[in-house]
Amino acid sequence: MDRRTGLPVVGMVGGGQLARMTQQAAIPLGLTLRVLSARPDDGAALVTPQTVLGEHTSYEDLAGFAAPCDVVTFDHEHVPTALVEKLAADGHTVYPSAAALIHAQDKLVMRERLAALGLPVPRWAPAADAAAVAAFGTEVGWPLVAKAARGGYDGKGVWVLDTAADADDLLAHGVPLLLEEKVPLRRELSALVARSPFGQVGAWPVVETVQRGGICVEVLAPARGLAAAGAEAQELAITLADRLGVVGVLAVELFETHTGRLLVNELAMRPHNSGHWTIEGSRTSQFEQHLRAVLDYPLGVTAMTAPAVVMANVLGGEPGGPSLDERLHHLFAADPAIRVHLYGKQVRPGRKIAHVTALGDDLDAVRERAARAARHLRDGHS
Amino acid sequence: MDRRTGLPVVGMVGGGQLARMTQQAAIPLGLTLRVLSARPDDGAALVTPQTVLGEHTSYEDLAGFAAPCDVVTFDHEHVPTALVEKLAADGHTVYPSAAALIHAQDKLVMRERLAALGLPVPRWAPAADAAAVAAFGTEVGWPLVAKAARGGYDGKGVWVLDTAADADDLLAHGVPLLLEEKVPLRRELSALVARSPFGQVGAWPVVETVQRGGICVEVLAPARGLAAAGAEAQELAITLADRLGVVGVLAVELFETHTGRLLVNELAMRPHNSGHWTIEGSRTSQFEQHLRAVLDYPLGVTAMTAPAVVMANVLGGEPGGPSLDERLHHLFAADPAIRVHLYGKQVRPGRKIAHVTALGDDLDAVRERAARAARHLRDGHS
Repeated sequence: MDRRTGLPVVGMVGGGQLARMTQQAAIPLGLTLRVLSARPDDGAALVTPQTVLGEHTSYEDLAGFAAPCDVVTFDHEHVPTALVEKLAADGHTVYPSAAALIHAQDKLVMRERLAALGLPVPRWAPAADAAAVAAFGTEVGWPLVAKAARGGYDGKGVWVLDTAADADDLLAHGVPLLLEEKVPLRRELSALVARSPFGQVGAWPVVETVQRGGICVEVLAPARGLAAAGAEAQELAITLADRLGVVGVLAVELFETHTGRLLVNELAMRPHNSGHWTIEGSRTSQFEQHLRAVLDYPLGVTAMTAPAVVMANVLGGEPGGPSLDERLHHLFAADPAIRVHLYGKQVRPGRKIAHVTALGDDLDAVRERAARAARHLRDGHS
Repeated sequence: MDRRTGLPVVGMVGGGQLARMTQQAAIPLGLTLRVLSARPDDGAALVTPQTVLGEHTSYEDLAGFAAPCDVVTFDHEHVPTALVEKLAADGHTVYPSAAALIHAQDKLVMRERLAALGLPVPRWAPAADAAAVAAFGTEVGWPLVAKAARGGYDGKGVWVLDTAADADDLLAHGVPLLLEEKVPLRRELSALVARSPFGQVGAWPVVETVQRGGICVEVLAPARGLAAAGAEAQELAITLADRLGVVGVLAVELFETHTGRLLVNELAMRPHNSGHWTIEGSRTSQFEQHLRAVLDYPLGVTAMTAPAVVMANVLGGEPGGPSLDERLHHLFAADPAIRVHLYGKQVRPGRKIAHVTALGDDLDAVRERAARAARHLRDGHS
């Protein structure tokens, strides 16, 4: 407890935009957020007084950081499993636990577990050598998808293999590979839930995530034309949160095939890009819900605040053009209803620097507003 | 500009809950908030890395604080006028300006100016001696209201005089008094607007403020059964913002008489308790709008997010009972849709420690939820 306020101290490992937006959610709840950040100018470090500089791969840094925290949680999944386990063994409350978190850290472990639970996944196989790659390709057909079992973020660490030879380089570098059939997609969905230690689960409406070049560019809430698939996706996420013992937010990224089947693609156990729309679009944002979950507070309602909500990511554009401040002026003039979230980052081409959210009654109109606003912040014109 | 982000630094003098909620609004806008706070455990100081400890009555403290700011604004009206003027003379951008702010600092100046503008006010008179008090009482009838021309917050600095002798003590203490007729009220309203240096004005729906013992306990948005009076109140606030040259949020507290007349009671030139409902209840909160206004960004839309929104203030209750943390647990269990804003303050009886907001379709139901939640946080039970 923070003696100044009589309310808990929540530690978040990682100082990126997820921790930054968690600080925004912690303020009204009266909570003290403590952030372990690699650099003093990380997005969360800029807005959080209790920022500790340190490395998430150093147990000394982690333990010093965790000491005054009532609970420790994460803004990314890069803390080595052994260190998460040691924090818990040393008496710290850590959510999600190492046993749950491993399923968001290691894709092979995740695939094995989901298969054991009988949940729908693409056909998959581990591959340690060229023979295994060739055999799997023969079985499911080319091209196929190879993923690094550990690491990988927003599409990095994922490769499309046209032939077995395409894996040679990866294997030579000793990357433990998960191979998957290349699923013919109608679209990608995300089912977001939060679960508390008590076992309460709250689910937001299932959303549609639009990817371009392996990067999520847009999230449409709710996903269009979901009938039974919406309930099925929510049920899947709730089951997974329960079976894996997740505490906090769980994002289940799903493939919807042309025949309407749902297959689990990836898991994340933290506030997730596919849930940024909840800040204005839901009565309880994913950041507040994550805090409530890891503290075992009762969860908030997840009802939408508008019929259609669209979030668009803003990537840094090419250098030159108007300053970010000027872009913001013009954007607000062009759309006084747009909601802007800047991450406090220096602009670099392709770097996620912000997101925008539009709300309204008509999805197409809302979508066009969000896309235009994102272009405006990226390029200085729409 | 903050070189780390390429976006402005906004300085706010005062580290209370208004600055704390402004920090919450500054985060998504990518702005750097800098707070001048008297104590390291003030509500805003707890959540704002750039907190400078100092006194708002010391020019040295103010100037050092203002040095890296693109604009300086206020979370209260207690900075002496001469120091506000000197900050501007020394090249700092200060909003609202001293010339505008004086109308929220000095009730006599305000009354004189409003009378000169021909705006509706209660009958009033300055009073420097007992003879003046007696004469005014004879003119408008007893009891009458006496206000300290300067100072006064949430009802302190306001007295009801039954006879001229009741003013003796005040006059003996040299309090410059403003006398006003005691207006027979139907209710109190608040018209909230924001104005930018460019001259753009945004107005929120007019709300009803419910006072108990001189303290605002509840705000109902929108005010019930306003017909022409709603437009009249908004027009009044817009006119005032324009004529006084206000930049930032202006709250115009109004009396509605039994005959439906509107009279201006008080002015505030900062985010105001009567606008806390806008955090969830309007597409643009008063805190974001204040930041946009003082930075001369185009203003955001002020549309409501639900048909009925009620804010209830939470005052500290008697010592004992469940901890604040336990109260929060039980409150969230009782009402998963309630929105809570804790100010990070130690609980003391009568001290404003939080507010709660409820949203919905039916005002009576929403009002009951907000009142119950406020009781819950105050007393540990509802």
